[in-house]
Amino acid sequence: MIHTPYLLFLGDAPDRLAAKVAQGIKDWRPELAVGQLRLPGCNADMGLADLSIEHAVSRGAKTLVIGIANRGGFIPDHWKAVLSDALAAGLDIASGLHTLLSDDLVLVGDAQRYGRTLHDVRVPVESYPIANGKKRGGKRCLLIGTDCSVGKMYTALCLEREMRQRGMKASFRATGQTGILITGSGVPLDAVVADFMAGSIEHLTPENEADHWDIIEGQGSIFHPSYSGVSLALIHGGQPDAMIMCDEPNRSHMRGLPDYQAQSFERLRDTALVLARVVNPDCTVTGVALNTSAMDEQEALDYAAGIEDRLGLPTVDPFRHGAARLVDALS
Amino acid sequence: MIHTPYLLFLGDAPDRLAAKVAQGIKDWRPELAVGQLRLPGCNADMGLADLSIEHAVSRGAKTLVIGIANRGGFIPDHWKAVLSDALAAGLDIASGLHTLLSDDLVLVGDAQRYGRTLHDVRVPVESYPIANGKKRGGKRCLLIGTDCSVGKMYTALCLEREMRQRGMKASFRATGQTGILITGSGVPLDAVVADFMAGSIEHLTPENEADHWDIIEGQGSIFHPSYSGVSLALIHGGQPDAMIMCDEPNRSHMRGLPDYQAQSFERLRDTALVLARVVNPDCTVTGVALNTSAMDEQEALDYAAGIEDRLGLPTVDPFRHGAARLVDALS
Repeated sequence: MIHTPYLLFLGDAPDRLAAKVAQGIKDWRPELAVGQLRLPGCNADMGLADLSIEHAVSRGAKTLVIGIANRGGFIPDHWKAVLSDALAAGLDIASGLHTLLSDDLVLVGDAQRYGRTLHDVRVPVESYPIANGKKRGGKRCLLIGTDCSVGKMYTALCLEREMRQRGMKASFRATGQTGILITGSGVPLDAVVADFMAGSIEHLTPENEADHWDIIEGQGSIFHPSYSGVSLALIHGGQPDAMIMCDEPNRSHMRGLPDYQAQSFERLRDTALVLARVVNPDCTVTGVALNTSAMDEQEALDYAAGIEDRLGLPTVDPFRHGAARLVDALS
Repeated sequence: MIHTPYLLFLGDAPDRLAAKVAQGIKDWRPELAVGQLRLPGCNADMGLADLSIEHAVSRGAKTLVIGIANRGGFIPDHWKAVLSDALAAGLDIASGLHTLLSDDLVLVGDAQRYGRTLHDVRVPVESYPIANGKKRGGKRCLLIGTDCSVGKMYTALCLEREMRQRGMKASFRATGQTGILITGSGVPLDAVVADFMAGSIEHLTPENEADHWDIIEGQGSIFHPSYSGVSLALIHGGQPDAMIMCDEPNRSHMRGLPDYQAQSFERLRDTALVLARVVNPDCTVTGVALNTSAMDEQEALDYAAGIEDRLGLPTVDPFRHGAARLVDALS
């Protein structure tokens, strides 16, 4: 559990895209950010107050979150003085970078000296049990994909927001680094040891009230050869009552795999249901979420209508047009 | 890679069943064992020469293999003097026990002092790549299960033996601790980090001659909620041309899951094929391997004939009746 609220560190991000984590916090948990810290040359701006470390601390910040990703995922030398200052001023640090904070001896020393915590969200910090498959109370919705990076996290966060606005009980459950940094907790599933994958998801989505929904961030695709095992562990650990299929139309090939095309929605639906019904015989596929950011408005609406007509399932771009119809189908 | 040949350490095994690893080496790689080392009270006997450590070394032994598993998987104190003596005499040690050799400071110190290696086959020693899904030359057969512990490893070893006896090119590829100890190499898949599971199997079954068969030991089942992700990584990393379904008839429930029954062969076949054909459109299911050890001879034959009739696939207990018909179906 990462302590909140955050100071968002944007470093010298060349553009807004590089500040994906900060953007996610701004979009989905704005109440968790007291401000932003930018270095000279930074071209990203979350529209938050620009604060020094001291100001952020005085406004109650508990953790400096590294809100940007650079190529290679390393920690540049000119960030390190800032990070050491943050520790000295009483902030923890949270990072999803490939290079670990805990591998930097200076930062580790400073954290010890000042009694602070370094959170590397790429690394699991808990021991997870082996999954037991026991039926748990509460409802669960899992986002499943035709591919990696098709909008599963944003769809899950859209669903949570819509449900909460309706007064429903809903919890987004993060299973990747960005989702963990946005919400402060979760399971970095791609870094969990194979035997404990499904168990980690059971742990993440425990017994709950009968009308509570866990909205589980999906990962990869059961048809993506590199990561399919992770996706299946989510299905069997998550024990979903509902699955929503996520897709980004018009990809020329599956992510990272030039020789592979995504499988059809029909095949994804049918195969995922056979697998999910092992753990929950009542599981159904309830909708389709599209990332239509590459389409103009009319094209996006027409495309969604075509999929909806074909599959008989509510089909929307939830970030563009809202998740209401997807939530209707869960109620 | 564990250096061979082995001295099989049977400790004070209460019975033959406890010496599962030693039995596997005796059954499948007898040429790798120069003898056995038994402590007072040992009731297991592999029928090998009883050798002291010094005798084993003089006969060329390179590694002492802990051939037994005790409840809890720990290293009893009265074994440790033997293990230290082995290191001093120039042997490496290989273990699949839950407690790691490398966590025992005395053994680690002795190994350093004598320049020996401690092999804990539960722990991956290599860095594996992320799977790329590229088509590789050579043929691959994957054993898939209705459940855990239904005979996938023994079936794979039966297939390898039968193929080699016919002069075919075949390599058993171990994916579990026992298989690794039996053959000296492999991938401890259940201990690999999620993102690298499929990649570790691509690494284990690389490009090969067109008429070479990798016989890939399966793990778990795509329908076993605790371990299904591992099973799917084997399908997508293994890129099988053929899959053989393994089952132990008449189990009252799935292993470790009192509330779960195994799915039917038909459902396993159909679902595994949809998943496998993502990476290999020509993949087929070619046979069924049964563990009929709980049945008498006639019962076993009748049961196999019934499955064969139902599925139209050669169905045998390969350990009891030979793997010839399963190999015929691959040729």
